[in-house]
Amino acid sequence: MQYLKEADLDYIAVGAAILGAGGGGDPYIGKLMAKQAIKKHGDVKLISADEVPDEGFIMPSAMMGAPAVMLEKLPNGAEPEFAFRSLEAYLQKKAYAVLSIEAGGLNSCIPIYTAACLGLPLVDADGMGRAFPELPMVTFSVAGVSATPMVVCDEKGNKMVLETVTNDWAETLARTATVAMGLSSMISIYCMDGKTVKKYAVRGTISLAREIGRRIIESNKAKINPIDSILEVTKGHRLFQGKIMDVQRDLTTGFVRGKLIIEGTEKDKGSVFELDFQNENLVGTKDGKAVAMTPDLITVLDKERGFPITTESLKYGQRTVVIGMPCDPFWRTEAGLKQVGPRYFKYDLDYTPIEELVKENA
Amino acid sequence: MQYLKEADLDYIAVGAAILGAGGGGDPYIGKLMAKQAIKKHGDVKLISADEVPDEGFIMPSAMMGAPAVMLEKLPNGAEPEFAFRSLEAYLQKKAYAVLSIEAGGLNSCIPIYTAACLGLPLVDADGMGRAFPELPMVTFSVAGVSATPMVVCDEKGNKMVLETVTNDWAETLARTATVAMGLSSMISIYCMDGKTVKKYAVRGTISLAREIGRRIIESNKAKINPIDSILEVTKGHRLFQGKIMDVQRDLTTGFVRGKLIIEGTEKDKGSVFELDFQNENLVGTKDGKAVAMTPDLITVLDKERGFPITTESLKYGQRTVVIGMPCDPFWRTEAGLKQVGPRYFKYDLDYTPIEELVKENA
Repeated sequence: MQYLKEADLDYIAVGAAILGAGGGGDPYIGKLMAKQAIKKHGDVKLISADEVPDEGFIMPSAMMGAPAVMLEKLPNGAEPEFAFRSLEAYLQKKAYAVLSIEAGGLNSCIPIYTAACLGLPLVDADGMGRAFPELPMVTFSVAGVSATPMVVCDEKGNKMVLETVTNDWAETLARTATVAMGLSSMISIYCMDGKTVKKYAVRGTISLAREIGRRIIESNKAKINPIDSILEVTKGHRLFQGKIMDVQRDLTTGFVRGKLIIEGTEKDKGSVFELDFQNENLVGTKDGKAVAMTPDLITVLDKERGFPITTESLKYGQRTVVIGMPCDPFWRTEAGLKQVGPRYFKYDLDYTPIEELVKENA
Repeated sequence: MQYLKEADLDYIAVGAAILGAGGGGDPYIGKLMAKQAIKKHGDVKLISADEVPDEGFIMPSAMMGAPAVMLEKLPNGAEPEFAFRSLEAYLQKKAYAVLSIEAGGLNSCIPIYTAACLGLPLVDADGMGRAFPELPMVTFSVAGVSATPMVVCDEKGNKMVLETVTNDWAETLARTATVAMGLSSMISIYCMDGKTVKKYAVRGTISLAREIGRRIIESNKAKINPIDSILEVTKGHRLFQGKIMDVQRDLTTGFVRGKLIIEGTEKDKGSVFELDFQNENLVGTKDGKAVAMTPDLITVLDKERGFPITTESLKYGQRTVVIGMPCDPFWRTEAGLKQVGPRYFKYDLDYTPIEELVKENA
């Protein structure tokens, strides 16, 4: 039997932020919340998808909105439980376990917090294997699971139960509510049975995040650069290294949309790397040529220590290494690419897997 | 025992639009819906507030948004029942009767439609005695009744149950949802018991609307101008007559905000009347001097036939008579004026009752 302990949160917060591909929220607040909840309520049982009974009722818990905002507009701590309990009451069902909807710093910690507060197990899986900016961008949605009934609530105590005709409408209505609530909210969404979780969840992301985080923190303790170790466990590639020259951000739509420009150093001296993001990093180009694109994962790391830098924490002057990692095979199918491929985000690019781009650019 | 028959709808639609003070929606669609429902389901029992048992559960039904939009974005007809039944299910209560939240063309017809479809009686009362643009602008809200739990739904089948910490938050979240739904929605809101209805509702507005409408239609049949008759039954005053020279409108905030300019004719020749509106007419000035202001009712009439022209139907060239009518005494209290007086709408004006303004300007 596996349990998540307080100390695991240090690993998971960092490792999930690597998988978050720039998004999923800065892990700091979520980590503190989850650690506090484990201290108060005890360790969280981590179960594999296979351990969920077919009819077991699974409820994901997540933060929605511009993660940059949550660095200053703090949760009050009651929202995840409030959202969860409200949805249970609405559906008149009791949850069997909590699930993470995406792998990302904040949004991997929030479900642990919720599970600890409610005394429920957490499924070692998620709906993306990474983070993505919009609600329909989960394997479940592509497979036909309804995002609603869902609950959106805020730190003031406002609450909304949504039932929509499509998951795109859930995105539209939950997003406008989140913007009105002050650009961040807590949600409970994509309720489903154990059978569906087993069929469509991306498996093992919590333990993968823990392993990545463990390597980063242990390497740092041993004064070893952890980047090669990260690449090993994520099957990733080094894309660029350099100094951040410019970050443009726009928060008005409820996302952190923007562009990052990195000037190459050392072996990339003389080159420029551009990275577009919408909460998550979407397309990276080196000297105008795409070197990695959604749905593959692109993450910016602090060059010396290998810690991930989420899109809301990027700053001028940071010395960085950009890495790219292959996404879950689900996203490389036609249906997956339709939902999260470069053309969905309005890039005039055909998706090319990162392994091929790396070979082409070698 | 009083019943609302199909023929009453012609009267109520017109009379309620007079009370709507420019707002409450063009009655055309609502009238057709209510007539059809009565034809199909039978006459609607009209009960006085006193006939509602103290513990009887009362649910208002209304349209929210920019009424101008509903002239083209038609309801599918299922929304009011959908909103109503959803709220009943959420609260696990059965409604005793339907209530109108405001007196206005569309929003007096919608509750009749809902009552007919559901086979419930309609209370002869409303929450304003006129129409106002925002959700907290009802006597119930000023008296401390919560707007939520409320339901917002659209013609596509999307639905939202809201519970908010204040009625202002209900306004904010329902308004942004309404804008996202395409600028109009159907709502069920301000559920309350019979005791509260008896204490705070503005009484008799359905039968008053019917009487006003009857006078307009009967006068027209007899080829008599009905405006004096309208003024008699509403204790109103003639404020101006002339030709519409300009109408400015902006719908982007989910309201119809704008300004109307009328050039005087006959005894008002040489004068100019300006009328500001936000769904409803708010402040009327003649040659720069205020002659009527919210919460008193200002309504623009077609000069020849006395039919009301709602703010979304004002057009260049229309020959009009502007009338002003005293509001319900509730709105003239300090608490009432704080919620709906001219300063709430950012006018630098102290409220002066229309009777006094008429005397001053005589």
